[in-house]
Amino acid sequence: MSARVDLNADVGEGFGRWTLGDDEAVLSLVSSANVACGFHAGDPVTLRRCCELAAARGVVVGAQVGYRDLAGFGRRFLDVDPAELTAEVVYQVGALEALARVAGTRVAYVKPHGALYNATVHHAAQARAVVEAVAAYDRSLPLLGLPGSLLLAEAERAGLRTVREAFGDRGYTPEGTLVPRSQPGAVLEDPDEVAARVLRMVREGEVVAVDGSVVAVEAESVCLHGDSPGAVAMARAVRAALADAGVAVTAFA
Amino acid sequence: MSARVDLNADVGEGFGRWTLGDDEAVLSLVSSANVACGFHAGDPVTLRRCCELAAARGVVVGAQVGYRDLAGFGRRFLDVDPAELTAEVVYQVGALEALARVAGTRVAYVKPHGALYNATVHHAAQARAVVEAVAAYDRSLPLLGLPGSLLLAEAERAGLRTVREAFGDRGYTPEGTLVPRSQPGAVLEDPDEVAARVLRMVREGEVVAVDGSVVAVEAESVCLHGDSPGAVAMARAVRAALADAGVAVTAFA
Amino acid sequence: MSARVDLNADVGEGFGRWTLGDDEAVLSLVSSANVACGFHAGDPVTLRRCCELAAARGVVVGAQVGYRDLAGFGRRFLDVDPAELTAEVVYQVGALEALARVAGTRVAYVKPHGALYNATVHHAAQARAVVEAVAAYDRSLPLLGLPGSLLLAEAERAGLRTVREAFGDRGYTPEGTLVPRSQPGAVLEDPDEVAARVLRMVREGEVVAVDGSVVAVEAESVCLHGDSPGAVAMARAVRAALADAGVAVTAFA
Amino acid sequence: MSARVDLNADVGEGFGRWTLGDDEAVLSLVSSANVACGFHAGDPVTLRRCCELAAARGVVVGAQVGYRDLAGFGRRFLDVDPAELTAEVVYQVGALEALARVAGTRVAYVKPHGALYNATVHHAAQARAVVEAVAAYDRSLPLLGLPGSLLLAEAERAGLRTVREAFGDRGYTPEGTLVPRSQPGAVLEDPDEVAARVLRMVREGEVVAVDGSVVAVEAESVCLHGDSPGAVAMARAVRAALADAGVAVTAFA
Repeated sequence: MSARVDLNADVGEGFGRWTLGDDEAVLSLVSSANVACGFHAGDPVTLRRCCELAAARGVVVGAQVGYRDLAGFGRRFLDVDPAELTAEVVYQVGALEALARVAGTRVAYVKPHGALYNATVHHAAQARAVVEAVAAYDRSLPLLGLPGSLLLAEAERAGLRTVREAFGDRGYTPEGTLVPRSQPGAVLEDPDEVAARVLRMVREGEVVAVDGSVVAVEAESVCLHGDSPGAVAMARAVRAALADAGVAVTAFA
Repeated sequence: MSARVDLNADVGEGFGRWTLGDDEAVLSLVSSANVACGFHAGDPVTLRRCCELAAARGVVVGAQVGYRDLAGFGRRFLDVDPAELTAEVVYQVGALEALARVAGTRVAYVKPHGALYNATVHHAAQARAVVEAVAAYDRSLPLLGLPGSLLLAEAERAGLRTVREAFGDRGYTPEGTLVPRSQPGAVLEDPDEVAARVLRMVREGEVVAVDGSVVAVEAESVCLHGDSPGAVAMARAVRAALADAGVAVTAFA
Repeated sequence: MSARVDLNADVGEGFGRWTLGDDEAVLSLVSSANVACGFHAGDPVTLRRCCELAAARGVVVGAQVGYRDLAGFGRRFLDVDPAELTAEVVYQVGALEALARVAGTRVAYVKPHGALYNATVHHAAQARAVVEAVAAYDRSLPLLGLPGSLLLAEAERAGLRTVREAFGDRGYTPEGTLVPRSQPGAVLEDPDEVAARVLRMVREGEVVAVDGSVVAVEAESVCLHGDSPGAVAMARAVRAALADAGVAVTAFA
Repeated sequence: MSARVDLNADVGEGFGRWTLGDDEAVLSLVSSANVACGFHAGDPVTLRRCCELAAARGVVVGAQVGYRDLAGFGRRFLDVDPAELTAEVVYQVGALEALARVAGTRVAYVKPHGALYNATVHHAAQARAVVEAVAAYDRSLPLLGLPGSLLLAEAERAGLRTVREAFGDRGYTPEGTLVPRSQPGAVLEDPDEVAARVLRMVREGEVVAVDGSVVAVEAESVCLHGDSPGAVAMARAVRAALADAGVAVTAFA
């Protein structure tokens, strides 16, 4: 269906003495970088360097906003008050925007991280809180998220641009949702298989579900995972398969 | 000497459940508000509300940047690496700028807080780190600080605008520096006396030092303290004295 | 029914520059002090001083353990992994125990704070996690909590002592549970009325519910709130009413 | 001089999602483990697991207390008030003690970490603050530190046991102090050379300084570094050299 696709991955998730993943390798493979904003991970020096690397490689910077939870890496649901969440998202986007600007680039989209990503699929108040933050701060920023999520529905209702992402290394149900991590078939680990799936998603708009059926999938952007050596190898395989097939990797923003 | 002066005070220094000072009262008395940025104090909801109140009252918003030290309220010297300090200042200014923008205003100047304010009087590397952050982020932002400080000297060398502040409720030495808090005469508590001193600073550019001598003092802005009920009463006395004398209170920025 | 009762209240909930409530006043009115442990509030200097004041007044020290959430004051549900919660509770109790020991006293019971208190009423995994922590650390420590909560049920199953508390200033439903704060009648504010309710709870084991019916209530300990000037006045009224009625205020532990 | 020596290294320095070093490998090589206490690093789950591993391997647990500075990993001087530092050290030791107890072991000594280690060499008030904490909490706990430091001098004055440590992979000056990291010869990287130096320290009480002279060195304990793969290889080389020479590795505590 498409001769181009966006690849996105998380970067900037170290904190002080602690590093995580290989930001430099990831930033040489993706077209969009979800840069942490300091609440779930990411100290200002790391974030600034990520923005500089992204600017140098022509990678678009997105703000990956999360819960204020360094100890839990933003992966635990936090029942934060919506008004507080809105202010926290504005704070995070603005902090990263300043570092991006100093690095010669800018924040071009917003994507929630971890438990906030999962919560805003179903949790109306938190989904609206994130959308309100983006709408109040800069209506030109798209929201990157899961097809069918309340987040994207609320964003559309608010008149914001939305971008749907697919996952090359996650199993899909016959209904087109992700297989929960607690079930078999949730995560794929073979780079060649993942590369083939991504190619099919991009060119044919479909993916083989866990029961063998073929389901439609929108993939304006494909999410790769960047926090392990294996993930980098997988991203390389995906990138190579797309190049072989003549599919361009270009940012959506 | 002058028919106008700027009054500045710290606001936004609560954190979550904890409040500090009466931001609403302070924001009805000053022309410039040093709004905390979340590192030494200030959660995003509090900061947003301060920006909204400031915008409604025509008070100019400044970014009061500090060390990353909630437990110490930014009042303890921290030997932070200069490159890290620069990135942290950019992060803080950008975070507040986003909240200010959402509130219909903007960050119009930068002032270091607490131990960072004191450190940048003498500590060349930290003074330069703060100046580099402002110069990289937005060269139009003035730095508010202590006359004679390295911070203002470095800012001038970098071509930034600087604004000198005086303290109505602090004792001065014959050399024109502040009496250390550990010595007698460091802090004045009588509202009328303080109001009279501020008036003399503004109109005659001088202050009576602890030894009775009269010393010159630059006062483009006068710093008031806002974190106690007494401080609000003192600010009211200063404001009234200035009004009686026909001195306008207007922001420098 | 009883000629004695325990009164408990939260103390030690400041953090650095930020104070909260009047610990000294509260510690002169209660028999058991729920001292914060640093995760939702409470810096080590404040906690040490609370333990010293408690020791001097013969007030028993309890560990008020909470979620790791200073920004939310532990009042927001956090979906923390049970094994992590167990380790965090051990950490908090041990930290306070050391400060209590240095102050000449010891931790004599455990009570969850805020959202953890509410969660462990119904959330089995978190209730068990707290109980496991106490059982592993010191089986002689009682757990103070809400009658009917999973926390107390799990504690009993584990062979720990449990202590039931009642609330003098909260409305009760005909079923004997607390009226949710979002509904009318949830909170009582008249000191005399609250004092009379506490007296009836203690002597007759009953309370008048919001619909006027009389329901049974267990009150081995009565919880007073300590974080406002009004709360101190209310605690004084309760204490005076108990004294007039010849009811002794003594710790359960 | 000696047929035995203690080997110590830092462990437990991960935090949540972030790991650091190979605690399991290190705990199979040392006799004393400096376990972080949560202020500069170390979440409760990680600390508990370190205590369990140490208990299983017969490794003695020490409390590695640090500044409250996760962002700086406790490696930046913080001008903390001495009374606050004392309370913070008690808090940290108690927290780890509880986790150690649950793991079937106990805290057997105290060692300051990073910038606090360096500060307490010369900073009298901070050295005394750490010593006061240990003296108040448990007078039987030895302090592990640098020969010639104020920390050990204050500890001796207070009647506490002190243990001197040497560094196998650090250059020494002719005066017997460590070569600053900013100068050549500060750090040695060849495992065989380091092993030979440790052996000479232990058996002959001497080390070759950067200028070739031989200086005396006390080495009741030798500090190994554990936060890199190379460090584990070096520790293995040291351990093997000691075994070949018939020197037993046993804890001092």
